[in-house]
Amino acid sequence: MKKGIIPAVTGLVAGVLASTVFFASTDVGPRSDANTSSTTKTNAEKVYVPFGEQDEYYLFASGGHSGQMFIYGVPSMRHIRTVPVFSQDSATGWGWSKESLELLGDYTWGDLHHPAFSETNGDYDGKWMFATDVANSRAAVMDLKTFTVKDIIEVPNTSGPHCAMFVTENTEYMFLPTRFSVPLGSAYASLDEYSSKYYGVMSAVQFDEEKEKLSIAWQVALPPWSYDLSDAGKGPSHGWAVVTTYNTEEATTNLEINASQADRDFIVLFNWKELEKMVAEGQYEEVNGQKIIFPSKHKGGIYLVPVAKSPHGVDVTPDGTRFIASGKLAPALTVFSFEKAFKAIENQEFSGEKYGIPILNYESVMEREVNPENALGPLHTQFDDKGMAYTTMFISSEIVKWDPNTGETLDRVPVQYSPGHSVAAEGDTVSPDGKYIVALNKIAKDSYLSVGPSHPESMQLIDLSGPKMEVIQSAPVNPEPHYAQMIKADKIKTIEVYDKDPNNPYAVYSQDQTRIERKGNEVHVYGIAMRSKFIFDAKAKRPDVIEVNEGDKVFVHLTNIDFDEDITHGFAINQYNLNIEVQPGQTSTVEFTANKAGTYPLYCTNFCSALHQEMSGYLLVKPKN
Amino acid sequence: MKKGIIPAVTGLVAGVLASTVFFASTDVGPRSDANTSSTTKTNAEKVYVPFGEQDEYYLFASGGHSGQMFIYGVPSMRHIRTVPVFSQDSATGWGWSKESLELLGDYTWGDLHHPAFSETNGDYDGKWMFATDVANSRAAVMDLKTFTVKDIIEVPNTSGPHCAMFVTENTEYMFLPTRFSVPLGSAYASLDEYSSKYYGVMSAVQFDEEKEKLSIAWQVALPPWSYDLSDAGKGPSHGWAVVTTYNTEEATTNLEINASQADRDFIVLFNWKELEKMVAEGQYEEVNGQKIIFPSKHKGGIYLVPVAKSPHGVDVTPDGTRFIASGKLAPALTVFSFEKAFKAIENQEFSGEKYGIPILNYESVMEREVNPENALGPLHTQFDDKGMAYTTMFISSEIVKWDPNTGETLDRVPVQYSPGHSVAAEGDTVSPDGKYIVALNKIAKDSYLSVGPSHPESMQLIDLSGPKMEVIQSAPVNPEPHYAQMIKADKIKTIEVYDKDPNNPYAVYSQDQTRIERKGNEVHVYGIAMRSKFIFDAKAKRPDVIEVNEGDKVFVHLTNIDFDEDITHGFAINQYNLNIEVQPGQTSTVEFTANKAGTYPLYCTNFCSALHQEMSGYLLVKPKN
Repeated sequence: MKKGIIPAVTGLVAGVLASTVFFASTDVGPRSDANTSSTTKTNAEKVYVPFGEQDEYYLFASGGHSGQMFIYGVPSMRHIRTVPVFSQDSATGWGWSKESLELLGDYTWGDLHHPAFSETNGDYDGKWMFATDVANSRAAVMDLKTFTVKDIIEVPNTSGPHCAMFVTENTEYMFLPTRFSVPLGSAYASLDEYSSKYYGVMSAVQFDEEKEKLSIAWQVALPPWSYDLSDAGKGPSHGWAVVTTYNTEEATTNLEINASQADRDFIVLFNWKELEKMVAEGQYEEVNGQKIIFPSKHKGGIYLVPVAKSPHGVDVTPDGTRFIASGKLAPALTVFSFEKAFKAIENQEFSGEKYGIPILNYESVMEREVNPENALGPLHTQFDDKGMAYTTMFISSEIVKWDPNTGETLDRVPVQYSPGHSVAAEGDTVSPDGKYIVALNKIAKDSYLSVGPSHPESMQLIDLSGPKMEVIQSAPVNPEPHYAQMIKADKIKTIEVYDKDPNNPYAVYSQDQTRIERKGNEVHVYGIAMRSKFIFDAKAKRPDVIEVNEGDKVFVHLTNIDFDEDITHGFAINQYNLNIEVQPGQTSTVEFTANKAGTYPLYCTNFCSALHQEMSGYLLVKPKN
Repeated sequence: MKKGIIPAVTGLVAGVLASTVFFASTDVGPRSDANTSSTTKTNAEKVYVPFGEQDEYYLFASGGHSGQMFIYGVPSMRHIRTVPVFSQDSATGWGWSKESLELLGDYTWGDLHHPAFSETNGDYDGKWMFATDVANSRAAVMDLKTFTVKDIIEVPNTSGPHCAMFVTENTEYMFLPTRFSVPLGSAYASLDEYSSKYYGVMSAVQFDEEKEKLSIAWQVALPPWSYDLSDAGKGPSHGWAVVTTYNTEEATTNLEINASQADRDFIVLFNWKELEKMVAEGQYEEVNGQKIIFPSKHKGGIYLVPVAKSPHGVDVTPDGTRFIASGKLAPALTVFSFEKAFKAIENQEFSGEKYGIPILNYESVMEREVNPENALGPLHTQFDDKGMAYTTMFISSEIVKWDPNTGETLDRVPVQYSPGHSVAAEGDTVSPDGKYIVALNKIAKDSYLSVGPSHPESMQLIDLSGPKMEVIQSAPVNPEPHYAQMIKADKIKTIEVYDKDPNNPYAVYSQDQTRIERKGNEVHVYGIAMRSKFIFDAKAKRPDVIEVNEGDKVFVHLTNIDFDEDITHGFAINQYNLNIEVQPGQTSTVEFTANKAGTYPLYCTNFCSALHQEMSGYLLVKPKN
């Protein structure tokens, strides 16, 4: 065992942890749980937001393989909205409207893992929300004025950007380290050639706020390992970023055992300012249309820091001086010092290299190993307004509060059960709020009314304002949040209606502009939706009827001319498998081929008025023969 | 104006109601709302379910054009689960697994309007939940042991079964009256021939509990009107059912105005026992494979009752003696007597007929017109344990409690805003519980943190236990619930894991049974998922790798052999646009064509253990050339 590395849980024990011991801490059901303080009246009052008042924070939780983003209010923990991102959502027509189909491309689902707010000076600015798709290597951006997605891009050469590195301090970059290593461009290559032909690529994505477009600035071809969680430096560590790795064993099968063999893996330390400079100087290769830095060839800017085996989270302290690695399979956390790291790099205190990347001496960078008694499975750390750290312990099912300055354990609270991540109020910014932390628990077990063999996950709200942490609310969650961010409610400024867009060729804002135009076998409908009717062609005998010929390609361009907050209309055609929505003032297009002759009612799917039920018409498709 | 018919809001006023007046009752924002009692500590305590306790009721809300069912706990109003029914749901692999694709057919979404529990003796029995799809004329059944959908069928000849008639007293039938009239089989026919060629078809669907299969027993071809809400008789009215109609004007355009012309529409009164007998005696025509009764030809069993214009809900009292129609565009409710109706039918007190269907005298059937002062837009009525009625008033945004025996208004409570339906605890059974009623509000306005121009809907929980109704909690809801049912929690008995199924040819329960079989260009993978690895072929060098040739048709049959509650595994392949889940003990199949050569990681999408992140492998697709 390498000196100085925390004694790690052995592979065998790891296997056991994954099965038997997994529930060791959950054998005591909630009814006999000792945390009786959560039953006091005070807790009920703390989380109750009476009608006429509003929640203090928005919580944005990734929706995992639902592909969506879940929006909650805190402290009520009420689910306010699911915003469609990577997966189809018929409730909003996401994946049916032409605009959304263009963004979604060939995919009808995604695996949204880590939400990240845009930042200004290391603080959430409430303007944009970013997210990545682990399943299909995509990045997305949501506009927080409308809570709708503005752009989605595919990121080639990677496979499974498990963790957006959150954004850098001024949203210069969003980093996407890949979870899985693959040959560049996902080319075919035998796993026998894993170490030579597979890469773990880290992508630097940029966002153009003006154009509302994402783009890939450059990529780094890393060793064929798995890259897990990450964080961006701040203040004194501005320009740097950290990423955890596992499977530095380069196992190609049965990772459960084989990727847990070595006592240590690495944290990758990026000097992104330096990498940016290298790209500007042409130190990269062009592969599949991307600028890729190969560290063995283009030296400098990337370093490895040894860390206890298979770490999960790595989190930069609010003051930007330290980064804290969670052990996952080790019983402890490691506090590293950026200052020490910078000095070690300057002094070239390297213990060797891997794939041409220098390895820093563990002792030169490590500041402290922290090992709260009997705490098992540290995964992820958040911070409060005093700089104190809160770490989720997956296996011992608790959150441990501790002091990064001393390593001292300050408080512990059991959560139910198996927390993955946690999110504190603005807890990964330069100025966390304290007040609240939410445990994102993977297992709900008997916390809620049963909904079958598969249960919801669970979020538990913990009050940080008293002398002891206290769980004050438990909220079930749809599958499956991985990470979340919590922002002060007053930072987000939504619009009430969409402005008229004089440049949109498909928008019509008055009845006399409505029309149905035919070009060959293409039919373009320029229609409006208003309380409580559709008008596709005001001059027609039946303005709410669309008549086409079998085989026609039909484009319905629909504008909602009710410029009233919350008056959204829907548009569906029976048996034509389509539904879109138009929010107040919005124009949207749906395209379909009229391949079924016959008579098909069309109707408003989004309740809009007392006469919503009457807001209908017909699509008549004249048979070919 | 016809004598005895409630003076109705005129077409002009109706139009105004739909636009300007719509918000008249909502001008006062929540911050200045007078309902200050909801801010008392008592309300916080009333809705708080501390960890270790569970909610008293399940609330099943239809998900509207989300196509899904939303499950809530009452009184906490926490959203526990979204169960996929008619729309794809990547979180659970619904719409990706072979089993779900077979049920969903050609559709990727639906518009789920009305949930209905199975009943025994007029009471919810907690065994099954039924629902209909307005968009694609389908019916579905969910098993409440697993909260998963077991069957979905298409119902031909109809278009938009807006309202399942809920089920009959012993789940003999689920009736699906159509909202839109169409030519039979959705054939093409000009709207100029609406009155002669279009029909509103009511379908009688049956459920075989043994086989877990739905089927269509028979249909009735009704006049070309719109059919809205419905209810089944109980006790003295067993064997009967009631349905409201609108657009008896037979307008074919601009229904907002044209379907609101006449002072009255009708309630259709069905004697389904009689109709059943007629079918048994061969009194039907076979059209598009269905047994259809044409009332003009096959006389008896159907009657019309005049009612104030464009009614919405019609609700049978718990004792089965009365049915109450809501006016929607009329200011009042009408209480009708089944006994009077039966007598009028016996005495043939008809005032005429429409399409060969006898019209009963309004005066012969009507018991009372109820007109709570200034209440506008009555939509739907539920009941409590004392037989008292609770009616949602859409336009005046309130719930009015009144006595069906006397018509006396007993209490009123404002809700925020524009309630469509409401649901009381077991409030449409033979034995309502009282205790709670939930208002399903169409407009949330500023009730919650803003999520853009389009807001969530809102459910408000009203406490019925005190001397006055009191709103005690407000919960935002995804778009968009139309109707709900609330059942005592202890009536539902879920299973913890799926039993082994020795008859499932795709299931493998031990590692030595795993294998990959090739038949021509078809590859069948018989694999298992277990904490924390996939085993597709235990004998292979890399048991968690699937290697195929470009163009192969691949079937992955996956069994979750973790027979532990809540240990669900997922299975996704990157860039192959697929994800399924296997609940504990379950076997599921996903089929795809390996049309992209290359290297694609596969992984478990549903967090399952501390080593979930390691639960991965590869799909290698060897290029053709």
